[in-house]
Amino acid sequence: MHLSEIKHPNQLHGLSIRQLEQIARQIREKHLQTVATSGGHLGPGLGVVELTLALYQTLDLDRDKVIWDVGHQAYPHKLITGRYDRFHTIRQKDGVAGYLKRCESKFDHFGAGHASTSISAALGMALAGELNGENFKSVAVIGDGALTGGMALEAINHAGHLPKTKLLVVLNDNEMSISPNVGAIPRYLNKMRLSAPVQFLKDNLEEQFKHIPFVGDSLTPELERVKEGMKRLAVPKVGAVFEELGFTYMGPVDGHNLEELINTFKQAHTITGPVLVHVVTVKGKGYAIAEQDQVGYHAQSPFNLATGKPNPSSKPKPPSYSKVFAETLIKLAEENPKIVAITAAMATGTGLDKFQAKLPKQYIDVGIAEQHAVTLAAGLACEGMRPLAAIYSTFLQRGFDQIIHDVCIQKLPVFFCMDRAGIVGADGPTHQGMYDIAYLRCIPNIVLMAPKDEAELQQMLVTGIEYTDGPIALRYPRGNGYGVPLMEEGWETLPIGKAEILRQGDDVLMLGYGSMVYPTMQAAELLSEHGIEATVVNARFAKPLDTELILPLAQKIGKVVTLEEGCLIGGFGSAIAESLLDNNVVVPLQRIGVPDILVDHATPEESIVALGLTPAQIAARIRTAFFSQQLSAVSS
Amino acid sequence: MHLSEIKHPNQLHGLSIRQLEQIARQIREKHLQTVATSGGHLGPGLGVVELTLALYQTLDLDRDKVIWDVGHQAYPHKLITGRYDRFHTIRQKDGVAGYLKRCESKFDHFGAGHASTSISAALGMALAGELNGENFKSVAVIGDGALTGGMALEAINHAGHLPKTKLLVVLNDNEMSISPNVGAIPRYLNKMRLSAPVQFLKDNLEEQFKHIPFVGDSLTPELERVKEGMKRLAVPKVGAVFEELGFTYMGPVDGHNLEELINTFKQAHTITGPVLVHVVTVKGKGYAIAEQDQVGYHAQSPFNLATGKPNPSSKPKPPSYSKVFAETLIKLAEENPKIVAITAAMATGTGLDKFQAKLPKQYIDVGIAEQHAVTLAAGLACEGMRPLAAIYSTFLQRGFDQIIHDVCIQKLPVFFCMDRAGIVGADGPTHQGMYDIAYLRCIPNIVLMAPKDEAELQQMLVTGIEYTDGPIALRYPRGNGYGVPLMEEGWETLPIGKAEILRQGDDVLMLGYGSMVYPTMQAAELLSEHGIEATVVNARFAKPLDTELILPLAQKIGKVVTLEEGCLIGGFGSAIAESLLDNNVVVPLQRIGVPDILVDHATPEESIVALGLTPAQIAARIRTAFFSQQLSAVSS
Repeated sequence: MHLSEIKHPNQLHGLSIRQLEQIARQIREKHLQTVATSGGHLGPGLGVVELTLALYQTLDLDRDKVIWDVGHQAYPHKLITGRYDRFHTIRQKDGVAGYLKRCESKFDHFGAGHASTSISAALGMALAGELNGENFKSVAVIGDGALTGGMALEAINHAGHLPKTKLLVVLNDNEMSISPNVGAIPRYLNKMRLSAPVQFLKDNLEEQFKHIPFVGDSLTPELERVKEGMKRLAVPKVGAVFEELGFTYMGPVDGHNLEELINTFKQAHTITGPVLVHVVTVKGKGYAIAEQDQVGYHAQSPFNLATGKPNPSSKPKPPSYSKVFAETLIKLAEENPKIVAITAAMATGTGLDKFQAKLPKQYIDVGIAEQHAVTLAAGLACEGMRPLAAIYSTFLQRGFDQIIHDVCIQKLPVFFCMDRAGIVGADGPTHQGMYDIAYLRCIPNIVLMAPKDEAELQQMLVTGIEYTDGPIALRYPRGNGYGVPLMEEGWETLPIGKAEILRQGDDVLMLGYGSMVYPTMQAAELLSEHGIEATVVNARFAKPLDTELILPLAQKIGKVVTLEEGCLIGGFGSAIAESLLDNNVVVPLQRIGVPDILVDHATPEESIVALGLTPAQIAARIRTAFFSQQLSAVSS
Repeated sequence: MHLSEIKHPNQLHGLSIRQLEQIARQIREKHLQTVATSGGHLGPGLGVVELTLALYQTLDLDRDKVIWDVGHQAYPHKLITGRYDRFHTIRQKDGVAGYLKRCESKFDHFGAGHASTSISAALGMALAGELNGENFKSVAVIGDGALTGGMALEAINHAGHLPKTKLLVVLNDNEMSISPNVGAIPRYLNKMRLSAPVQFLKDNLEEQFKHIPFVGDSLTPELERVKEGMKRLAVPKVGAVFEELGFTYMGPVDGHNLEELINTFKQAHTITGPVLVHVVTVKGKGYAIAEQDQVGYHAQSPFNLATGKPNPSSKPKPPSYSKVFAETLIKLAEENPKIVAITAAMATGTGLDKFQAKLPKQYIDVGIAEQHAVTLAAGLACEGMRPLAAIYSTFLQRGFDQIIHDVCIQKLPVFFCMDRAGIVGADGPTHQGMYDIAYLRCIPNIVLMAPKDEAELQQMLVTGIEYTDGPIALRYPRGNGYGVPLMEEGWETLPIGKAEILRQGDDVLMLGYGSMVYPTMQAAELLSEHGIEATVVNARFAKPLDTELILPLAQKIGKVVTLEEGCLIGGFGSAIAESLLDNNVVVPLQRIGVPDILVDHATPEESIVALGLTPAQIAARIRTAFFSQQLSAVSS
């Protein structure tokens, strides 16, 4: 059988190890070719090919449910669940999603782009099965990095005290998040990898117990205890932590040995109560270049398969915001030993890997643990440090309560630097940085700012570090800057809550925030071609607003437009609406940004067009709203 | 020395065990008398009297930092850190806070009303100390309940891999959150309590090593290893989980034996790297009635010390919202086996203890684990159950990312029931339920509703359970209803997104949401006495808004007021502002609610007055805004 013939994962049933090995090779080939051509996640999927095949051979996928933690490890899953033919469209607009998606396939039982959610979801399904009297298996596949996330540990604490609930946790231990893992749990796992032989129950205990007359599915309490005792004897030294927490531990198992995997999973399915199978995998397995550079090949833009080198881009691009952020921060931190940069397992994404290399003492990677990252920063701030939590907009959602409770209520000077704020492109809805303005703006004591370009990012970095009156947050987009000149030193701070007038005109007031300032200027020029002259303001701060500047302009000009790359509900435009009405400036307002929908995966450019956020679209929307005859009659 | 003479905790230095026992008695006396008179937390403080005294005798509180997880266990701390004289004002307006507060005392190093934050904060301070070359001790005191919170476990994972960082975690194990704990970690701790003898290193290892010539503060790596080995030998069986995670485990220690505690803490201070001291305490210790009923005496309104009975209240009150919620839900769940009620360790507060007693199979307590609670609910929803997550507004902040990522993006029908939404009174800023409208409103796919009274709460409960198109959230206030008639059965669902007109008038449109609807009606009556006739709308839904009803009314009447018990930024009034302007209804709007400040502890009535939310204040504000001559000139 060829991979392309597999339309349903149950077709794996009955295949021999050799046949599965063939399928595995075909999966790797397809996976590699696709990512080399179109880009996408590479290392995670290559590492779980055998794990996926072995697990699925032991399950009935019409009934049983597999929940993949962070869908980027689920490319092999996609290839054997009916998406082979469309796989080349992965992460492209209207194509196969890069993560799992319930609406894409009945085999995608739970979507996930953020880490550490799978055990909770799988346990919920398992408990539902119990309550409904159904008998399906519920399986969570979670990485060792994701296991350090607090909610995964909460779920283990809960599952571990449910001795009758059938739940299988497959720990995909590749010693990595995107970067090498930090923390005591990964170290503990590593100890097991290094010291323990592969251990699992060679004989199926259930089978043995069936030989005892009149013992069927349910054992007497006495026999149950005997069985428990035997299990514990069988795994005397490894997995003690999981065993103490109520799980039956099995492993470590070689994650690229199909036979071992299948035997272990089969055995795991016979055990009552929560089971953890510890599978040791190699990220990037089967592609030597990716095995060698596991950080670099976690995900890739299109590249040459033979060399591993990225395809040459047509022209050189300006530096990314992340790069400018990291390089500027390094310079500032070299001068200021109080600066401590914190990441939650996103060293490369945030650019902090360079910071770590230069200033390891002022760098902290807490693992996938945004909640802890925020409160750790609060603790550092208490002692006079300048902690800077560099966390993507979407991942900072995980630290929301900590931002309120530990930082803002105590007015502690923590500096939040939110990369990937706004449209993120191919990663899709789970990663869009749409909500940060809204979810931070409602909290007392915090300052919110966003730069119009990469040079202003530098200024805002300095501003945030110098500002010690309380918390301050900086959002900046994914992708590249505009190529404006950067300063090497001598940055000046910006006055808090002060905006900047970029253009003057009497017909309409356009207030741009962050990444929307340049498109706003361009739209203003287009409007000018139609005889409409706009005043353009770079708001710089969403909180506090520069009401001193904005309100008189709004009153005078009488037509206001706000522009932001974020959700319209509660966002920057909403702040302007509140401010105008609170101050009795009762004028028409057009808010342009992201409406109340989920933005699907696509290129950022495609999303921008779909949302009507190009300069031409903005200009057209403003003309329709304010300068077409019909509407101006209504709004007057 | 009498307790009242202790102005600084360092005065404990040098006191004998007998003297400390005397102080302990005086603390308990003062604690009991104060709470019996004024109300407050009882059991947690009584349980840690000896722990506090012993710990503080071994520390220099001018340098060392103790971080108390959830400040309600810190009453003894308050009594020996300069607040004895004002202690009778606890939890009262302008009085001593019920939790810790950095601005209240230099000994309150970190405030906390939510659980599980202390290890992160203490580690942050410890790392700051390292970077600054300071040498203070950083201590977190955390309950066994709080230890199941994910962020505490994230912090343990981080601290456990920092072998050189001096951090002491004191585990205050009283087998309880507010209710008995659930989960594998508490069970594991319990196993240690039951099976292990009190174990700690009888001889101070550091002392022994000092006898080796030329070994001072720093040991050679070889000796360090020997010492580590000895430590591990000394605690062979208990604490393995913590040891595997990189902590030196000491205990369990009798938390009411001062001598044992002091010896253990002294020893712990000599150890490099993270140390966990497991202290076994009795919640309510020293007050037999509280020891017997640990759930009931976690916190108390004023009561009779001799009998433990609450002081008789002057007149019978209408039922609380929590009670109506729980009793109605029980009836609904008896009919509908798909309903599953989830709490995160707040069975009594939410009223779900009654639900558990009646329908234990349909009840899940996940422990202090709001993140897991939300995603568990999502998993249950995938399998067709009707999960209902009953979590206070303030604690649901912990599940914010899960609400977005696991529930709303997947449009899963999870029903969030947020008790304590709005002003909470004596618990103060950490517990105010101010932000839920703002932080939920920005998420696509969710429905938000709030009832005007307890009868409408019943209707909304039915509505939420019947609504299966996606997530839905219900907010209701702390405290008692209005005494309106309740229905025993036959509730009808409310149409989603439809408001209700309660009163008609041509002068001003008043839009009330949830708990502000009755005050709105009362304010309208007061306005009527001044010849101002208001239309009053009970909005019922903050999302989706009933724009069909509201917009034409706003256009016609021309003056709009919104009223909500929540933050004004991004809240219900902000939704109305957005909707009016988006639809080109350009009319003045007065938003009444909670401004951008922290609301301190006080009685709810005092807070209402301070915020200008009484009917008389509302009426006056509306007259000033819209019907005084000067202002009407501006707004016309």
